[in-house]
Amino acid sequence: MTFTLDPRLEADTLPLGLLGLCAVRLTNDARYPWLVLVPRRPDLVEVFDLTAAERGQLMEEVAAVSRALDEVTGADKINIGALGNIVSQLHVHVVARQEDDAAWPGPVWGSGSAVPYGDAELDVLRQTLSTALAFG
Amino acid sequence: MTFTLDPRLEADTLPLGLLGLCAVRLTNDARYPWLVLVPRRPDLVEVFDLTAAERGQLMEEVAAVSRALDEVTGADKINIGALGNIVSQLHVHVVARQEDDAAWPGPVWGSGSAVPYGDAELDVLRQTLSTALAFG
Repeated sequence: MTFTLDPRLEADTLPLGLLGLCAVRLTNDARYPWLVLVPRRPDLVEVFDLTAAERGQLMEEVAAVSRALDEVTGADKINIGALGNIVSQLHVHVVARQEDDAAWPGPVWGSGSAVPYGDAELDVLRQTLSTALAFG
Repeated sequence: MTFTLDPRLEADTLPLGLLGLCAVRLTNDARYPWLVLVPRRPDLVEVFDLTAAERGQLMEEVAAVSRALDEVTGADKINIGALGNIVSQLHVHVVARQEDDAAWPGPVWGSGSAVPYGDAELDVLRQTLSTALAFG
């Protein structure tokens, strides 16, 4: 089987670029800079469905994306999560949190409703993140 | 500096055992089987504060604990999260979720109040988890 992105992830996020293992996508929610890493392998649900080598690669990609997002946003804290209660396809959230953001200190998941980016704001953020992640 | 467990983590969780990198602790909340892994290194906040080797070890310990917790509990989904908005010391939550649990499909963090285990229930769970994690 080949990798196919879950339709809900596809609807809620925008493509930023590809790393060795993961597709990196931006959640269309202007409340928080919020990236999602999706390992491009079929039939994954839990982290232990990956091979050990793939897990190592996932960790390094999560760390690199976390560091880049932290630098770009000046976040107070990076939140990382792999939940999958709604979309079971394995995906890892990397979210830049600020102490005055809409959900602080709670989690972003399940908190209120997404506020889509405006076109101009989105263009700038995608370009900034693509450059920081060395996709640009 | 030496590693010291954050006082809030110490108050909210009970010790289960030690892995190569992490202390494994059980959150005292009977609503969900909920483990916390704390890398035993000083001054960690973000995943990228670890060395690459430590990150690889953390990932393998998270995967092993996730698999053991999944097997012991028959979880519908394992939730993994490193948030740190309240307790900044780096720690990783590994939570066994069921589709009829108190917070499903939302996250456990920030959802309601902990329900402490009864003594007998706690003894059984700690023994079962210690055996599954090969601490026992």
